[in-house]
Amino acid sequence: MTRTALERLIQTLARLPGLGPRSARRVVLTLIKKQSALMEPLLQALTEVAETVRCCSVCGNFDTDDPCLFCTDPHRDSSVLCVVQEVADLWALERSGIFQGRYHVLGGVLSALDGIGPEELRLDALIARVIASRVTEVILALGATVDGQTTAHAIAGRLKKYDIIISGLAHGMPMGSELDYLDDGTILTALRARRPWG
Amino acid sequence: MTRTALERLIQTLARLPGLGPRSARRVVLTLIKKQSALMEPLLQALTEVAETVRCCSVCGNFDTDDPCLFCTDPHRDSSVLCVVQEVADLWALERSGIFQGRYHVLGGVLSALDGIGPEELRLDALIARVIASRVTEVILALGATVDGQTTAHAIAGRLKKYDIIISGLAHGMPMGSELDYLDDGTILTALRARRPWG
Repeated sequence: MTRTALERLIQTLARLPGLGPRSARRVVLTLIKKQSALMEPLLQALTEVAETVRCCSVCGNFDTDDPCLFCTDPHRDSSVLCVVQEVADLWALERSGIFQGRYHVLGGVLSALDGIGPEELRLDALIARVIASRVTEVILALGATVDGQTTAHAIAGRLKKYDIIISGLAHGMPMGSELDYLDDGTILTALRARRPWG
Repeated sequence: MTRTALERLIQTLARLPGLGPRSARRVVLTLIKKQSALMEPLLQALTEVAETVRCCSVCGNFDTDDPCLFCTDPHRDSSVLCVVQEVADLWALERSGIFQGRYHVLGGVLSALDGIGPEELRLDALIARVIASRVTEVILALGATVDGQTTAHAIAGRLKKYDIIISGLAHGMPMGSELDYLDDGTILTALRARRPWG
């Protein structure tokens, strides 16, 4: 009777990324104390998201509409397609506010270690999209990791027979960084990809 | 239409203790991806807690029953009353499994800085409980902080006219600690409260 409802909520919360049993307990106590200021808005927002947010069948983004906001926005440039690993990456790009083309979310990267092959990703959908629509450039905005770059390489291989530009994000020093704090891999990449000044 | 439901959920989650905008976004993406494994159990547990868990009118604990489990458990010793600041402290004591008496949650500590006076706490309720029931000992298990000890002192002052034992938790070296890593205040306290060996 007693602890079960609370224990169940704590255990469920503790399974969320970034939360453990201790922080889950703190969250639950805060929620109970702030019933109208936090608990009710959270329940409302959670219910709304659970009921309305779905995966966009075109790009793989999460949205209440399918196709999603980015796929239907007439002000976006349909000729440029930006390929990202996860929806989180799409959101990160959107926060920068710089990209005005369309997106394609792969849903992960190829990984022999984790047993993720091309079938687990939205790779065929990407190729189909490129063939079907007037895409002129595909930007491979995948992680600068071994798996990310392997995946980018595989995608580039499958796309090269079509008459489109394939590009990748630049690798080098992150803005605001100091040489002294960079790892060797980044220094090597930044040095190799050095550009004429001015 | 689009981002609002998601944004609202992210903003609400970001207000929870230990979460910020970044971790709230990660949580939301995980929830959407794991609809049946996480989102639905969370919604269920949250709804149940929101609808059933209330503040116990006797001790101040959060529970589905009022009076709560600890107040109604016949195996607990009603003659010993343990005074804690918050429900979180009660839960911490319960996890240790050592205390078998009853609890009283103050709901905070006296704090001139935060403007918390005796009226904001469940202090009168504590005195009333002591007078009304057969309490023989009150354990002041408040924080070893200035505010915690000031509050303990104030409670002890109001209780001393009744014929009961008033005790406080021991202060000293936490188990597993090394002298080298302790703050001066703890070393001072542990030295002053030193006990005959064996």
